[in-house]
Amino acid sequence: MKYIDLNADIGEGFGDYTLADDAALMPLITSANVACGFHAGDAVIMAKTVALAKKYQVDLGAHVGFPDLSGFGRRRMHIEPEIMAHYVTYQLGALSAFARAAHYPLTHMSFHGALGNMVSEDAQLARVLLQAVKDFDAQMIISTMSGNAVERMARELALPVICTFLADRAYESNGLLVSRAKPGAVIHDKEQVRTRIRQLLREGTVQSIDGVTLPVTATSVLVHGDTPESIEMVHTLREIIAEMDIALMPPARQRRELARENALL
Amino acid sequence: MKYIDLNADIGEGFGDYTLADDAALMPLITSANVACGFHAGDAVIMAKTVALAKKYQVDLGAHVGFPDLSGFGRRRMHIEPEIMAHYVTYQLGALSAFARAAHYPLTHMSFHGALGNMVSEDAQLARVLLQAVKDFDAQMIISTMSGNAVERMARELALPVICTFLADRAYESNGLLVSRAKPGAVIHDKEQVRTRIRQLLREGTVQSIDGVTLPVTATSVLVHGDTPESIEMVHTLREIIAEMDIALMPPARQRRELARENALL
Amino acid sequence: MKYIDLNADIGEGFGDYTLADDAALMPLITSANVACGFHAGDAVIMAKTVALAKKYQVDLGAHVGFPDLSGFGRRRMHIEPEIMAHYVTYQLGALSAFARAAHYPLTHMSFHGALGNMVSEDAQLARVLLQAVKDFDAQMIISTMSGNAVERMARELALPVICTFLADRAYESNGLLVSRAKPGAVIHDKEQVRTRIRQLLREGTVQSIDGVTLPVTATSVLVHGDTPESIEMVHTLREIIAEMDIALMPPARQRRELARENALL
Amino acid sequence: MKYIDLNADIGEGFGDYTLADDAALMPLITSANVACGFHAGDAVIMAKTVALAKKYQVDLGAHVGFPDLSGFGRRRMHIEPEIMAHYVTYQLGALSAFARAAHYPLTHMSFHGALGNMVSEDAQLARVLLQAVKDFDAQMIISTMSGNAVERMARELALPVICTFLADRAYESNGLLVSRAKPGAVIHDKEQVRTRIRQLLREGTVQSIDGVTLPVTATSVLVHGDTPESIEMVHTLREIIAEMDIALMPPARQRRELARENALL
Repeated sequence: MKYIDLNADIGEGFGDYTLADDAALMPLITSANVACGFHAGDAVIMAKTVALAKKYQVDLGAHVGFPDLSGFGRRRMHIEPEIMAHYVTYQLGALSAFARAAHYPLTHMSFHGALGNMVSEDAQLARVLLQAVKDFDAQMIISTMSGNAVERMARELALPVICTFLADRAYESNGLLVSRAKPGAVIHDKEQVRTRIRQLLREGTVQSIDGVTLPVTATSVLVHGDTPESIEMVHTLREIIAEMDIALMPPARQRRELARENALL
Repeated sequence: MKYIDLNADIGEGFGDYTLADDAALMPLITSANVACGFHAGDAVIMAKTVALAKKYQVDLGAHVGFPDLSGFGRRRMHIEPEIMAHYVTYQLGALSAFARAAHYPLTHMSFHGALGNMVSEDAQLARVLLQAVKDFDAQMIISTMSGNAVERMARELALPVICTFLADRAYESNGLLVSRAKPGAVIHDKEQVRTRIRQLLREGTVQSIDGVTLPVTATSVLVHGDTPESIEMVHTLREIIAEMDIALMPPARQRRELARENALL
Repeated sequence: MKYIDLNADIGEGFGDYTLADDAALMPLITSANVACGFHAGDAVIMAKTVALAKKYQVDLGAHVGFPDLSGFGRRRMHIEPEIMAHYVTYQLGALSAFARAAHYPLTHMSFHGALGNMVSEDAQLARVLLQAVKDFDAQMIISTMSGNAVERMARELALPVICTFLADRAYESNGLLVSRAKPGAVIHDKEQVRTRIRQLLREGTVQSIDGVTLPVTATSVLVHGDTPESIEMVHTLREIIAEMDIALMPPARQRRELARENALL
Repeated sequence: MKYIDLNADIGEGFGDYTLADDAALMPLITSANVACGFHAGDAVIMAKTVALAKKYQVDLGAHVGFPDLSGFGRRRMHIEPEIMAHYVTYQLGALSAFARAAHYPLTHMSFHGALGNMVSEDAQLARVLLQAVKDFDAQMIISTMSGNAVERMARELALPVICTFLADRAYESNGLLVSRAKPGAVIHDKEQVRTRIRQLLREGTVQSIDGVTLPVTATSVLVHGDTPESIEMVHTLREIIAEMDIALMPPARQRRELARENALL
């Protein structure tokens, strides 16, 4: 692996409420997934987050979720795909306005929480929602996990894709995440998390929950900023990346790099 | 008067709820002020409204309001200007996304309800909110009433302006609207409304509530679509306009026409 | 059948929005299921609805739904039962406050929309939500459809029950409603609806969608008020009931009647 | 002074969000003002807060606010008194349901944030809102600040009243709070806060911002729990109270005590 993106969910407060120390995390990451006011976030927080992303030249992405502030978008809602597609458009537009006003590009998008889970399992839902993304911006990079319906449909629709790795989540041997409902789904041991990141960066693989060595196509790693420990983990991760002489590279630059390499072939 | 725009507030439903017969009104008007999900409207209605505006080639505008769905944006809220500016950006962006996806331009914006009243009285609020509009799109046409703080600040910020005439609202002799709290503020007599429109179109003036003849710089008239009678009134208005050989012209074309005339001078 | 309750969903507007002509329907029914501000309704509408119910001595019930105003509570949400139970308590309390202020009793409750569908299929969800109802008021009458999980759990928890009949909805031969997704689920033919009501009142049975004659234990019929035709149907229904010499009787009086009869045995 | 109540605003989180350490504060206070889902709080938090209040036998009160979650109820909204009265009823009812389910009484109420400011200045608004409280429960204790419109109207309506002292807020010499907009409105110096509390408890007076010694009729002190320092301050306050041999006494017991004393006269 020559380069990696560090992405995090940012701007997940609402009104007077905050969830994580965004100001501490932003300088440490290379791309941000910003809540757009449906599952979290509001106009004020979005404006601040865009300014912070621009300040640290962090790639700006829309984190699109269910209209469920009281459930933080973590509850499955059975919304017709065509309706949800309009919610996607609305959220993309809302965030893009702050990007436009700040003269800073909106580069990517991803699906949050329960919507993310549903769309990663349901090709029909993925198709409809990604078509809405494409109708808004055909150059929008789709950030997702490799092997799921979102990745497949994004590639089918010729949308650019970046795959992300969840270092603290166990993988099934089919490459999908172990459901949070199952024991062992979340890896709390920090040393194990570091080991997994080293293996990803060195070999591009992960050990599944059954012990199978799986190839992982991710060029991004999701990090967290909600506790001092999680911020500490990002520092550690950056040290590992520096030691291995891997470049930190946000999604949009990865894409240009890839285009350049393809042109050289 | 050579041309006139007919504008209406459109897309003011929410979820299963509707307020007016948008499908009947849209073919009759030349510009639409579309609710953006704060005081009314939602993503589904916005998508439908944009499609309807495009179908009838009606100019598309954002009707920006307070975050007060239960009060329909009609209650004054004392929100800091800098905070409200972010709400403006959010709403403009949300609607612009549907415009972008439909390959149809967002041409203008106006302030709704209590926000509209407050911003028309408060130069400082007007300046901050209009700067947010300009930061989003410096070509956005500001639709307002002549003589108020919004018009003044829009001109100061070099934003294009279109002034609208409210045929069923009484005017003070200083050119501002008579407050709804006062008797006679709303003109219910249909013949009187028609007379006022004819006078506007022929002479560019209106009789104030005190009987003073005031010049009116409006090149747009606000119409309503919430009752069969109001739809009927729009038909009548179009007949009057046709009889007087005045062209129906939406805001963006008015602006181009003005630019052409200025270039000829 | 000696007596019947006519129930309707009432107070389903929000803010400036209305869905049905509650003032026309209220004098025609004997019990009202009032939206409590989650899927529809708000404090102002609730206050007006309680006053209207009191005026016509209509039994007052809480129509409890999902926190999904934009979807009118018609979209399934996977909310943990223990969380949803608190939403039930909140809604019951909100409506009961208007009842208390009006010195008028809150007699019954039912589950609305997608929540109603989910709770009627899921005994565990029904148990948790009905326990919340019982903790609030052990005398609260549960209005539901006979044979589903709500009826079973309500009886298990010793809560009083009233079963309702949906004259315009087809029944499976197991006694449950035909899903709206299936053809023939909704009966639009008015003559057929009248026939079904006559059969219910005379024989206490309904023809299933497969032609099987099913016993129905309902002592209430759901009516609608959203169109002039639906109001007309209620008038017709009241004529049928009068012709058959059946008494109109709201849920709470039915319950007292039943207690009196049981005491006589 | 023989007894004092320590009250705090509690349950001000929303969904996944928290503002203060309620579990740490609850054992230290004698009455809680609980957000009811309008400016803050939700059904889940309300249920937990009621359980916590019951556990520590803390008097339970409703903290009633504006429907403005994104502004935390801190922004003035010009809502018609009759409409706001229904919002008051709704909130009282919602919280009372959790109290009822927990077999624990709802003893008092107060107005939050910008609503609190507006109602304390506007006798007409105070009259309408307090009438709504009385219609809900004529025994509800009104918690407010002495000398404002709420206290006057509550006494006029024969509602029981408890007055609270804000140790960290400066007072004008007319006995009202110094507006937060003015310098010196909030007292940050902890030693000064302690001095003011000692003076209140010993002499029943406070120094106004102009140096005038004012009598204060408060039998309650507002405390905070949003920082470790504020929790520390409550411990200090309890030590001061203990040293001065003053009893901690919640509002309802104060009221009974007063009734007993009056009966003895």
